[in-house]
Parts: sequence; structure tokens; C-alpha cells
Amino acid sequence: MRLTAPWRARCRFKTSQMYQPKELIPFTELKSSKKIEELTSRSSRLLIEYGIVKPTSPGYFALLPLAFRSLIKLNKIIDDELEQINCQKIQLPHVSPANIWNKSGRLKSVGTELVKFKDRQDKEMVLCPTHEECITSLVGGYNLSIRDLPLRLYQTGSKFRAEMKPRFGLIRSNEFIMKDLYTFDKGCEAALQTYQEVSDAYNKIFTRIGVPYQRVEGDNGNIGGTSSHEFHYPAGIGQDELLWCSACKWGKNIELNNDKQGSDECPGCGEKLKISKGIEVGHTFLLGQKYSKIFGAQFTGAGGGGGGKAETLEMGCYGIGVSRILAAAVEVLSTETEIRWPSSLSPFSVCILTQKTGTKAYTGVDVDNLYEKINNIFPNDVILDDREKLSVGKKQYEADRTGYPILVLLGRKNMNPDPLIEIHIPSENISLELRPQDGLDYLKSISAKYLI
Amino acid sequence: MRLTAPWRARCRFKTSQMYQPKELIPFTELKSSKKIEELTSRSSRLLIEYGIVKPTSPGYFALLPLAFRSLIKLNKIIDDELEQINCQKIQLPHVSPANIWNKSGRLKSVGTELVKFKDRQDKEMVLCPTHEECITSLVGGYNLSIRDLPLRLYQTGSKFRAEMKPRFGLIRSNEFIMKDLYTFDKGCEAALQTYQEVSDAYNKIFTRIGVPYQRVEGDNGNIGGTSSHEFHYPAGIGQDELLWCSACKWGKNIELNNDKQGSDECPGCGEKLKISKGIEVGHTFLLGQKYSKIFGAQFTGAGGGGGGKAETLEMGCYGIGVSRILAAAVEVLSTETEIRWPSSLSPFSVCILTQKTGTKAYTGVDVDNLYEKINNIFPNDVILDDREKLSVGKKQYEADRTGYPILVLLGRKNMNPDPLIEIHIPSENISLELRPQDGLDYLKSISAKYLI
Repeated sequence: MRLTAPWRARCRFKTSQMYQPKELIPFTELKSSKKIEELTSRSSRLLIEYGIVKPTSPGYFALLPLAFRSLIKLNKIIDDELEQINCQKIQLPHVSPANIWNKSGRLKSVGTELVKFKDRQDKEMVLCPTHEECITSLVGGYNLSIRDLPLRLYQTGSKFRAEMKPRFGLIRSNEFIMKDLYTFDKGCEAALQTYQEVSDAYNKIFTRIGVPYQRVEGDNGNIGGTSSHEFHYPAGIGQDELLWCSACKWGKNIELNNDKQGSDECPGCGEKLKISKGIEVGHTFLLGQKYSKIFGAQFTGAGGGGGGKAETLEMGCYGIGVSRILAAAVEVLSTETEIRWPSSLSPFSVCILTQKTGTKAYTGVDVDNLYEKINNIFPNDVILDDREKLSVGKKQYEADRTGYPILVLLGRKNMNPDPLIEIHIPSENISLELRPQDGLDYLKSISAKYLI
Repeated sequence: MRLTAPWRARCRFKTSQMYQPKELIPFTELKSSKKIEELTSRSSRLLIEYGIVKPTSPGYFALLPLAFRSLIKLNKIIDDELEQINCQKIQLPHVSPANIWNKSGRLKSVGTELVKFKDRQDKEMVLCPTHEECITSLVGGYNLSIRDLPLRLYQTGSKFRAEMKPRFGLIRSNEFIMKDLYTFDKGCEAALQTYQEVSDAYNKIFTRIGVPYQRVEGDNGNIGGTSSHEFHYPAGIGQDELLWCSACKWGKNIELNNDKQGSDECPGCGEKLKISKGIEVGHTFLLGQKYSKIFGAQFTGAGGGGGGKAETLEMGCYGIGVSRILAAAVEVLSTETEIRWPSSLSPFSVCILTQKTGTKAYTGVDVDNLYEKINNIFPNDVILDDREKLSVGKKQYEADRTGYPILVLLGRKNMNPDPLIEIHIPSENISLELRPQDGLDYLKSISAKYLI
């Protein structure tokens, strides 16, 4: 007689009800598989194999439930920090009329990478890769007063680029999720102040994400403007070459050096510089008046009082590659066979693994109760692998590879008269056997690292 | 000497820092304005005038900070109820290859309303108005087991339609936000069970939103399938004609009646039927195997055990017009000059209005403290109109028109030795003068209605 798990009703997240369609390649084929080579990056292969992300056509990806949970966590970190510096969240259309892109000169300069289509009125439209034109003409359409400044507007949404060769899964795709912030200030000094505040917020965001990053002097690309910095995850598949100092953290994108030899000493502290490849995950630009002049984005009241002469706004724009971070973090931290998330972004922080439902009556800890208690420590962040036909060993194998940072395993010793639960933290090689209450105390003691 | 408001630092949301660029048309011009007639719907005019929504080009709209807050509230209601019935949230790409639309026959049948473009490899792509093709080919790409069923996947995101004549602002735009749910079941009976559960969840969602709605038998449109129901907000600008019974709530979309005269008696209870126009805000479809057959979406294990013969999945699809609801709710509830939100979706539930900072020392209640206490009752849902140069009367005028449901006004009597605060609930014609603590008690007593 099979024992039906009595706890299934009360636990909120269960592996049996989580859509995670795995396409696992048997370990023996792993090294030689042709398919893997085509996918070209470790993160892309792992995220697809473990049913977290799914390509729907070349350069386009569906975020399945586990990826979507990571996305929500990342967005929360970004929203938290940007709200701290009075950024306001909005949503701009994905589509803009091509005429504003013509006005800025970027219809030509971005060129074939721009996705365009004709609407029913035969007007050319752009599927936006970024929104400087859209937001500047929007803000320029109103009368701003000096009292409304600084104005900081951002959104998080999908962007589009016609890639000749989409690569590395979410790292270089045709459609991707970006957080883009646009700032408006009353003069250079105020704009620099904003630049500093946003840079500080970016440092906080990247520190909270927890993947080692490097901030370097950047390339202005086709956005234009006067100053920029990039945030990179150092990684072998990165498309940028960085020169940086491990002592004082100064760094620069080598694209900026015409003479690639240059100096190999840090201009900040004289230490020897390192070279590494990086995946760009954030970018800050001081734009000056490039767009505000073109689109007439002005403010009044600089002379005191409410009215007065209109002056042109000083702008900045600030991007974070949201979907790219999900993949790049996995790229940097994972092994060949095991996904590793930064603790801030794991789809679930804790996975509870139960034994296969067998012929013997279950005598261990009350799983329902344990779930609830762990869920109190990690709110809405605990999944129970309740599948009845899988051994606890196989569950552990899968949970480890999916990259859940904390595994709570109810194994053989959980059936002891004095039950013990196992806690595993694979990324730190921690394996413990503890009485349930001691286990809960331990989880509580380490929980801060996983809460966002 | 001007007194600087001492409380500004500690309050989280302040009107002075909220981007709400108003384009108010003086009241005297209101009736005759040509501009208004062009905008064609009350909600669109009001939302634009009050700096909540901004058109960026015909049929495309930016959601400014206040609209974005309403959107978040609406999404939360939807997510809550769908999660209750084990729907899992994902994100599909906005772009699909045209070949899957060709395969389903909809490349032709949807025709010119479909936005298409060529990618860099000269392949035709579709900017999706809906995602049946995309999700069914995704799910069909994996081996589903009977143990994975029912499978319910949904997303909330932007959709695109090439409108010949975009109208009524967000109600009929080229780009709009939809919640789309797709369900997969092991047979007709299970699919009907899902249909019933989702229909119940929809009733809960629309009840929580709070705008009066009517569920009617629907038209299958170009989606195909065997059964459907629509959810409508009765409104004069609605594009559908509904026949419904106020007694037993039965209803039907007249598109279904070839003979528009038909019977005027309710088939359910015999009462006389009413006719009204409706704005469609939700739709449920039982799809059968229309898409699953085409895209080979199957499952195994129907015969018991893990393997066995593959069988075709029974599908359903379920939409909610998210951005449309924001506008349609305002359309239904507002007056000519005052926005009215359902209490569930107001950008902020409470607006605290302070007096102009004058030459006299401020002697009323501690605003900082009041904000904090009201914010404890309405968490993150209170805005302080802290603008120093605007009289409390003008602030009230604006807050009323923006549609904040509860106004807490610190007027002249707040300067009494025994201060009184005013509480106004314009939509219910409630105006009270109360001691601060009585005011807080009152707010607490009515708060449940505004919490989502």
C-alpha cells in the first residue's frame, strides 16, 4: 500500500507542480555533444538543460517559472535602490515612430541593428533598443519648472536588437530585458551630482547581487555624451577587454585605448594592471544636452521665481542588462554540470527534499510543519520536492544541479527515533546532520545572506 | 521669513517629487475644446490632462508614475488569484517567427492587424498580439507526463496590433498590456474543470477590482475553440452589444445572434433582457485541440504508469486586458472633470494635504507623525501634497480631480489649540472634521476596502 504524502496540501511551492522541463544530456555524452558546442556558453546550456530558460527561435528566449522568480528578485533589488534616490518607475511603449530616431541621427547610426516595421498608416516605426528619443520628446512636451528637478524616470522592460549573430543565450539575444533610467537636471553640476548618486546606487545594486564586478571607464558607443562608466562581470566569454587594477579598483575598457599596449601601470596608484575579458552588465552615461537640445527638453525658473527664460536640461542615461545578468551570473559562478546562482537571485533559497513514498509508514519530522517554519525564515522562498517516485538521492542530484543554495534533506536518519535532518550548502561544501530545532536555528543564523 | 516644512524628509511619497505633468484645460474652455473631441473618450482625456498617461504617438501611450502604480495594484490582484489555482508565471518573447503563425493559419486570418518585420537573416517575424502559437510549440517541444497536468502558464506583458484606427486611449491602442494564461489538460473533462476554476478566479479578480461587470457568452473570434465567455464593463463607448438579464446574471454578446431581434426573454429565468454596450476586459476560451494538434503538444501516461501512448492535450486560453482595465475603470466611474478609480486601483488610497507654507508658524498636528500613522494603516499607499506655494484649497481641487479616494486635509481648524483634521471621501460625499486620533480610528475602520 502506498502512503500518500499528507503534507502536500499546505506547502505553497512544490516541485511536482513546478514547470521545469529538463532536457538532460546523459553525463557520458556531456563532453562530446555537438548540441552543446552549438549553444556556445555554459550558462545557456545549463539554463536550457535544467528547464529554466527555453529558446523559442534563434536569439529569443522564454523565461520559465524558475527564471521568472530570479527576474523578480533582481527587479526588486534594482527598484529598492533606485527608489532610494527618488527614481520614479514608468512604462514607455516598446514602439516609437522612426521620425524621432531620424531627428536624433540614430536611425542611420544604429542602422541595421534597429528593428523597423511599417504600421497600417504606412508610417515607419522602431521597436526600441533604448528610449532616449522617446523619453526626451515626452519630457520636452511639458513645461518643467526648476522645482520639478532633478527628475529621474526609469522603466524595466524588453528591448530589441536585430543581431547578425545572437550568441550565448540571454547574454546576447535579439530581445532582452533592460532597466533604463533617464535623468534631467538644471545644469552640469546638478547632472554630475545625479551621476554620482546613480553610480553609488549601481554599486549598491551590484554589491547586493553579489557576483564580483568591475567598474571601468567606458566607451560612449552610439549614445553620445561626455562621460561614461561600465559595470562588468569578468568572464572568459566576455566581449569587452578590460584593463584594471586589483589594488585601487580603477579600470578602463580597452576600446578606449587606441594604442592597446599603453601603460601597464595604474594611473591611480601605480600598481601593475590586469587584463581580463568582461561581460557588460551596466552602463552609466552623462549625456549633456545631446538629446534635450534636439527635442527641446527645457525647464524654467533658473532665475528664481516660477517663470523666466527657458533653459535646456542636462541629461544622463543609465542601463542595467537585467536578463543578461541572470545568464552572466550563472556563467561566472557555475561548474560544467551544476548551476550556481548568487544567493540573492536563486529561484528558491531553500529546497526541502523528502524520501520516496514507500511501503513503510513515514515516521520522521512533520514535513508540513518544517516547511512552514523554514518558510518563516525564508518567506515565499522555499520549495518542497514532494515527488513520490523519486529517491531522495536523485532529488538531491537534481536540486544541486538546479542550483538551490540550501538543501534540507530528510534522509534515512530522519526516520530515527530521535530524527536528524541534513543541511547541505553545496557552494560552500557544508554538510550537516542536526536535530530539527538545531537545523532551524542554523538556517536562521545564515538567512540574512539570502534575503533581498 | 518662510518656514521650511520640517516633515519633508521622512515621508516617502510627496507630490513635489511625483512626476505628474498636468495639461489642464481651463474649465471655461472645457465644453467647447476641439482637442477634447478628438481624444474621443472621457477616460483618455482625463488621464492625459492629469498627467497620468501620455500619448507618445497615435495608439501608443506612456504610463507615467501614477498609472504605473495602478498597474502594479492590478497585477497584484491578478497574480494573487491565479496563484491560488496553481498558475505559474513566465515571460515569453514579444516576437515569434512568422512560420508558426503560418502553421496555425492565423498569419492569413489575422492578416493586416498583425505587426510583422524581417530580421537580419531576412526571416519574417511577428510582434505578437497573443501567444497561443508560441506557448503551444514550446510545451509541445517537451515530453509532458500525466503527472505534470494540469499545467497552467501565464504572463503579463505588452501585445501589439496594427490598428487601422486606434481609439479611446488605452482602451483600443496599438500596444497594450495583457495577462494571458494558457492551460493544458489530459482530457475534455479535466479541461472543463480548469475552465471552471479559471472562470471562478476571474469572477474573484473582477469582484476585487470592484467595477461592476457582466459575464456573457462570447464570440470565438479568430482564436477558434469550442466555448467562450467574455467579461465586460457596461459603458456607452463599448464596442460590443450585450444582451443580459439583471435577475439571474445570464448574458450574451449580440454578435452571436444572427437575428438581432431574437427573444427578449432570459433563457435562464424568463425575465426581460436588457441591452447595453460593453467594453470587453476579459475573455475565457476552451480551445480543445486546435493548437495542440497542430504543434504536437502531447502527454503520456494516460494508461497508468509513466510511459504509454502519447495523447493530445486539451487547451484553454484566458485573457485579461490589463491596460484596458485601467482606462475602462476610469471611463465608467469618472465624472466629466473628476477621475474616479475603483478603490482597489487608485494610485494612492490617501492624499494628505497641507497648508501653504506661510509667514505664520505652523502649530497643527505633526505632519510627519500623521503620515507615518496613516501609512501604517495604508502601507506604501499614502502621498503627501507638500508643495509649499499652493493653498490647501487648490491642493484639494487637484487631489479630488486626480481621484485619490481619501483626502486628509490639514486646514484652518488644524491650527486650533485643539486641532481638527478634515477627512473627505468625494465619491461618497463624506466630509468629516475630527480630532486626529478619531480621524485615524475612522481611517482604520474603512481601510479594508482599499487594501488589496
